[in-house]
Amino acid sequence: MTKVRYKKLALMALSGVLIAQPVIAANDQALVELLNVLHQDGTLSDEKYAAIMKLVSSDMHIKNTDDPEQETITQQAQQRHEPAVQPQANITTKGKLEIASPEGDFSMRVGGRLMMQGAIYDEDIAALGSGGEMRRARLYVQGKLWKLWNYKLQYDFTASGKAGIADAYLEYTGLPVGEITLGHFKEPYSLQNMTSSKYTTFIERALPNVFAAGRSVGIAYGLSGANWGAQAGLYGDGIDTPGGEIDQGYALSGRVTYAPVFEKGMRALHVGAGYSFRAMDDNHVLSLGERPESHVTDVRLVNTGDFDADSLNRYGVEVLWFNGPFSVQSEYYRVDVDRAVAGNADVGFDGYYIESAWFLTGESLNYDPASGTLGKITPNKILGEGGAGAWQIAIRFSSLDLTDEDVKGGEEQNLSVGLNWYTNPNMRFMANYIKVLDLDGGPHAGDEPGALLLQAQVEF
Amino acid sequence: MTKVRYKKLALMALSGVLIAQPVIAANDQALVELLNVLHQDGTLSDEKYAAIMKLVSSDMHIKNTDDPEQETITQQAQQRHEPAVQPQANITTKGKLEIASPEGDFSMRVGGRLMMQGAIYDEDIAALGSGGEMRRARLYVQGKLWKLWNYKLQYDFTASGKAGIADAYLEYTGLPVGEITLGHFKEPYSLQNMTSSKYTTFIERALPNVFAAGRSVGIAYGLSGANWGAQAGLYGDGIDTPGGEIDQGYALSGRVTYAPVFEKGMRALHVGAGYSFRAMDDNHVLSLGERPESHVTDVRLVNTGDFDADSLNRYGVEVLWFNGPFSVQSEYYRVDVDRAVAGNADVGFDGYYIESAWFLTGESLNYDPASGTLGKITPNKILGEGGAGAWQIAIRFSSLDLTDEDVKGGEEQNLSVGLNWYTNPNMRFMANYIKVLDLDGGPHAGDEPGALLLQAQVEF
Amino acid sequence: MTKVRYKKLALMALSGVLIAQPVIAANDQALVELLNVLHQDGTLSDEKYAAIMKLVSSDMHIKNTDDPEQETITQQAQQRHEPAVQPQANITTKGKLEIASPEGDFSMRVGGRLMMQGAIYDEDIAALGSGGEMRRARLYVQGKLWKLWNYKLQYDFTASGKAGIADAYLEYTGLPVGEITLGHFKEPYSLQNMTSSKYTTFIERALPNVFAAGRSVGIAYGLSGANWGAQAGLYGDGIDTPGGEIDQGYALSGRVTYAPVFEKGMRALHVGAGYSFRAMDDNHVLSLGERPESHVTDVRLVNTGDFDADSLNRYGVEVLWFNGPFSVQSEYYRVDVDRAVAGNADVGFDGYYIESAWFLTGESLNYDPASGTLGKITPNKILGEGGAGAWQIAIRFSSLDLTDEDVKGGEEQNLSVGLNWYTNPNMRFMANYIKVLDLDGGPHAGDEPGALLLQAQVEF
Repeated sequence: MTKVRYKKLALMALSGVLIAQPVIAANDQALVELLNVLHQDGTLSDEKYAAIMKLVSSDMHIKNTDDPEQETITQQAQQRHEPAVQPQANITTKGKLEIASPEGDFSMRVGGRLMMQGAIYDEDIAALGSGGEMRRARLYVQGKLWKLWNYKLQYDFTASGKAGIADAYLEYTGLPVGEITLGHFKEPYSLQNMTSSKYTTFIERALPNVFAAGRSVGIAYGLSGANWGAQAGLYGDGIDTPGGEIDQGYALSGRVTYAPVFEKGMRALHVGAGYSFRAMDDNHVLSLGERPESHVTDVRLVNTGDFDADSLNRYGVEVLWFNGPFSVQSEYYRVDVDRAVAGNADVGFDGYYIESAWFLTGESLNYDPASGTLGKITPNKILGEGGAGAWQIAIRFSSLDLTDEDVKGGEEQNLSVGLNWYTNPNMRFMANYIKVLDLDGGPHAGDEPGALLLQAQVEF
Repeated sequence: MTKVRYKKLALMALSGVLIAQPVIAANDQALVELLNVLHQDGTLSDEKYAAIMKLVSSDMHIKNTDDPEQETITQQAQQRHEPAVQPQANITTKGKLEIASPEGDFSMRVGGRLMMQGAIYDEDIAALGSGGEMRRARLYVQGKLWKLWNYKLQYDFTASGKAGIADAYLEYTGLPVGEITLGHFKEPYSLQNMTSSKYTTFIERALPNVFAAGRSVGIAYGLSGANWGAQAGLYGDGIDTPGGEIDQGYALSGRVTYAPVFEKGMRALHVGAGYSFRAMDDNHVLSLGERPESHVTDVRLVNTGDFDADSLNRYGVEVLWFNGPFSVQSEYYRVDVDRAVAGNADVGFDGYYIESAWFLTGESLNYDPASGTLGKITPNKILGEGGAGAWQIAIRFSSLDLTDEDVKGGEEQNLSVGLNWYTNPNMRFMANYIKVLDLDGGPHAGDEPGALLLQAQVEF
Repeated sequence: MTKVRYKKLALMALSGVLIAQPVIAANDQALVELLNVLHQDGTLSDEKYAAIMKLVSSDMHIKNTDDPEQETITQQAQQRHEPAVQPQANITTKGKLEIASPEGDFSMRVGGRLMMQGAIYDEDIAALGSGGEMRRARLYVQGKLWKLWNYKLQYDFTASGKAGIADAYLEYTGLPVGEITLGHFKEPYSLQNMTSSKYTTFIERALPNVFAAGRSVGIAYGLSGANWGAQAGLYGDGIDTPGGEIDQGYALSGRVTYAPVFEKGMRALHVGAGYSFRAMDDNHVLSLGERPESHVTDVRLVNTGDFDADSLNRYGVEVLWFNGPFSVQSEYYRVDVDRAVAGNADVGFDGYYIESAWFLTGESLNYDPASGTLGKITPNKILGEGGAGAWQIAIRFSSLDLTDEDVKGGEEQNLSVGLNWYTNPNMRFMANYIKVLDLDGGPHAGDEPGALLLQAQVEF
């Protein structure tokens, strides 16, 4: 009997009675087809069939190929309903919001970060100003266009005007190897500089970060393999450089990293080196100064003040090793300055830091060998899902020497300890105690304060 | 017979013939299971079964656990199709955009507000400057992370730099009772201050709002029941306070509200009290001044100018009653200032307002007893859907006294009338006429202008 | 027998046994209804019915109208699951992100643009300052609310505070004809001014764009037909005008455009005229100056400096013609200034430009007759999809005369050539060479530099 029914159905289909629904998704079609069969074989009465079909048909438009008028109506309905039947966009909500086209050729992600700080100073000589601060409040939109292009625009609302523009670039990934980046982004130099402020082990980067170039407007080329990466670029000045009639300076900067040992999420040995040549703009004025590894003050204990410079050569070497929960990381920086005023002696400054950390809860650092940077920590146990998050302790020694010849910025050595609590992959709470061990020369010679620094951060 | 069929099915399942579809959503699985049953009991012929399954299977990949190769193919297909078969995100578009994970543990919402104003002054003594203004142009991103955490970052583009950061906080909701908020947000104090500028009855808040603390960087704890709420926090200075070497001030602020009568959308009696102690920063400079309930001018008719202050004690009591379309609301504020300079007499200022409003179209205020604030008005009839929106008339008397001892800021009394048109829940058009009834003392003594103030606002 | 079954079903429905699922989407309801019928007529056993329903019910909550407790539970479930059963939102990802409600009454779009420039000057007299610049870095949110309303908020992060607010408006489209716009947007005047900076043929607009009013806070009415458009509005001052006690100025501006020839994507002849009257604010100070068609400098070769003005009358006529890949476009501008200081002679300035372009790859301009502006170019062949994008060459002559009577701003004539590469509809790379042919009078008389200007732009 079943076969007889099917034959009847086939005949009905041939005679144009068969109902097809091209405007509805696959499973809806299947359901309708099933209803048709059950109706035709008598399992569903006319009334019941009509009642159920009414439930289905609110999103559907019957197409009878024998009826041209109906077909036109159906096509119009298809056009009206076009988006409903396009393949669904892929939406990610877990820890970040990203919406992508089904094929992945287009995507957009909206995100940002908040970092809230409080500092209590154990002042020595200079007043430092205990208090609270919104350290970073960033929003960004990034995405992919036409498969080959990435873009990003990120703004930090704690700054004013152009100074708040962080990453703002267009990237082309369609080359046989490597990718080209154009816009405003970090000049490649130094592990702690290239690692996002969301993922540095201490709240603020170590003292010699004063030597890092930061972000500039430029064009760069990057290349990477399974355990190495290299980037180099040509850059103008920073985005908020007062313009005017002065020719901007430029820089050639590059960084190479290699990980002879690398097991994702387990262990890595990373070595890297960076070099940057910068020709100063026609004002030829340089100033190097750094806060005491706490941003909640305007005091820069070491500070050269303005001095004349024609060009800079920066060098940096870096090493990172981690094995399971234990990590150690160190960098050495050197900057040689060619002076602009005849007769002024060339000067050189340097600095270094070494830090070590331990995850009490067993996590490892998240190292990315392509960019040679550290990334997001995912706790083994999320707070609120039966765990207490990840806990990490850390210690750091840092040293910076900004005194040479006639430039007397001072020499500072700090010791810091830190405690990090990662409640989930999007948040961490940090406590640092920073002690200035020694401050020789410079505008604040002999000032050796301490600072308790707290930070709550969330990325979304 | 039915039982026999089911036994057969069970045996087939055990023998590995049963088809399972782990990669498809719940209802798709149900449909397939139904098809299988109908096929197995003969209701669907082999051919018909295959034909319908083909319609289903375009998004599905059959997994036969007896066939390892097929399983691998299926797994690869699952990986390729992973996003397509993830549970769908929940997307809200009606009046706001919110995208949430299916379980609601994660969400993001992008929104903002525009408020455009025009003012025509009936000047008396001082020039006030008729004209137009973009009063607020805000964008925000807020959301939920890992179920227990909320975040928000809101920026007002009519301001510069840090001054434009409005709400910027992280909230923890995982406590047994209450929630902790950390970041930049309003110090709890005063009904009209805590109520969003989108939902105040008049375009600008009443004169004594000069006493409200506004937003500060801090940490707070909130608790609420069905008809009450309480919040208290510890705060530093405002986010755009010039930093430097001066220790910031701090404040302890709290507010308690209770609604002995509360029927949602119908009537409520709300009473509340707020208190705030603030220790000034080490500059000890305070200035209190207020525009004439119109922001389209720089003139503050009452204004103390700078004077020395060591600390402030603020007190406030508030009452709101509404019944159907009628509402009345009043607050009294008092601030006592301990002086910083020896010999200067302590001073105290106060103010109050009383306002009443009537919805001509029958709506009621939208009161939230947990936060003790007013919220969005939803017109009974939306403009464009057969209605003309909601219409509300209002009257307000406000008084502010900023003169005491050596501090002579003046004393102002205003009378205002207002007309509000809510075309839909996202918009309103407002007209206020503000008349300075009396201005005694202060920098503008005797100046008694009037102002016609217009506002168009949209929230999205 | 079928009829008997249906009767039984109807009786069960009346007796409250019938299960209805208002919380699930149409097709889910249909599936459940089918399962119920098949269960009730014995096709599905109790066990099998329960097993399949379990697959369905993870997103569903059965409502039995006879059971008040169950109903409450169901309602709570509805509230929890409300978004899951709303009709699916329509999501656009191809080249832009837009999320709309299924009926299209609500939508939101997040987008923006990046424009990165580099300039190398062939300086003559004045130093101009070669270098790079982030020319525009904009983000916007726009959308539709309650079917009849559009809103937009766009910010340019290269500017500070209110000066960065670009479009910020609310638009009402519910009138029988035309639409009303309220907020901050462009005063209608001039083809190149009204055309987005994303779609002008040269990197910077031609010299006489100095006469364009830019964006102001105001209210406007627009009307359009198949091949014409008209807009007129009443405006206050620009959004970042320093406020204060001075009454703002106002303007009445309008523009009419007509395309006697128009075939979409093929050819068009466009003619237009604009007029604007502006009464200056009470400061009565006007200044007109323009950079040499390159923004990467602060030097304005022609510049009147401040002079007194009571009101302005601006006139403009415009013509555009394109046929296939060839286009030519020209505008003439004139501004008559009534002076504020008695005895100062009224002055008049004018300017014009003519430019022509050719798509080497065969594309045509994208003209919109309703707004009378040019829009996005879609290359015939996208780079990376078997093509090399669109290529366009262009030439422009522009002239500006800012000297009259006592106001001696100078007179400049420029010749430019340009090459545009549109890799896909979201991006273009541009190279312009601008040569100052002649500079008579003004602060930089006789200075005739050249400039190579490069721009990479992406919109998302």
